[in-house]
Amino acid sequence: MKQTISFITLGVRDLARSRRFYRTLGWRESSSSQAEVAFFQAGSVAFALFGREALADDASVEAAGTGFPGFTLAHNVGSEGEVASTLQEAVAAGGRLVLPGQKAPWGGFRGYFADPDGFLWEVCFNPFVPLDAEGGVQLPQ
Amino acid sequence: MKQTISFITLGVRDLARSRRFYRTLGWRESSSSQAEVAFFQAGSVAFALFGREALADDASVEAAGTGFPGFTLAHNVGSEGEVASTLQEAVAAGGRLVLPGQKAPWGGFRGYFADPDGFLWEVCFNPFVPLDAEGGVQLPQ
Repeated sequence: MKQTISFITLGVRDLARSRRFYRTLGWRESSSSQAEVAFFQAGSVAFALFGREALADDASVEAAGTGFPGFTLAHNVGSEGEVASTLQEAVAAGGRLVLPGQKAPWGGFRGYFADPDGFLWEVCFNPFVPLDAEGGVQLPQ
Repeated sequence: MKQTISFITLGVRDLARSRRFYRTLGWRESSSSQAEVAFFQAGSVAFALFGREALADDASVEAAGTGFPGFTLAHNVGSEGEVASTLQEAVAAGGRLVLPGQKAPWGGFRGYFADPDGFLWEVCFNPFVPLDAEGGVQLPQ
């Protein structure tokens, strides 16, 4: 299995609300989006918003689930100041501040916000991982 | 907020088991991996495995959670046959077959497997989204 991720799909409870949130953050949908699914290009990966029930149904699993979903997405930025300003932007767009920007034990600086479904985004300044022009990361081999 | 995702981190219950699973699938860890966290480059995104409690703790949330985590990852391949062979590979590595490869209502062909924590991977042949050499996707603008 090739070392690649093609799509990250979030199953959301109110697609209109989630679309509005990510659009308000400045994200632009692909023209391949449809009424029942929103697609956003994010580097080499496609980020998708789809109904939670529909996503579970597609995978043939039960949609019920509560609590910590067990994963986070991270959005790396170029400075500690940008961590704070991005968290503010997310809150202004309707996100919830979960952890204000602060030093991480490993030497970086990060905070967290939650999107309308509670999915967690870390906003992170990581001085050890350089960003490319599009904000992608390249780890050492 | 730039339209970018830097890291996808899965909070796992047994890091050694998860490491073994993804390595057995042929994924190679970055040299920046550490005892308590595994990093894998996947296109422009870094895929990380971290302890579930440690991840929740980093975000200052409760680690408890059950049921459908509300998201899926997708791994796109170039043919229907590759969907079947990749699902077989995942099962041989210790994954669980969730949905055997079959036609999707939108015209593609896909199946699902679950990783050791039950995180869902869709293995998908999508004739409408071309793959680049590294398996990344580029949606129409």
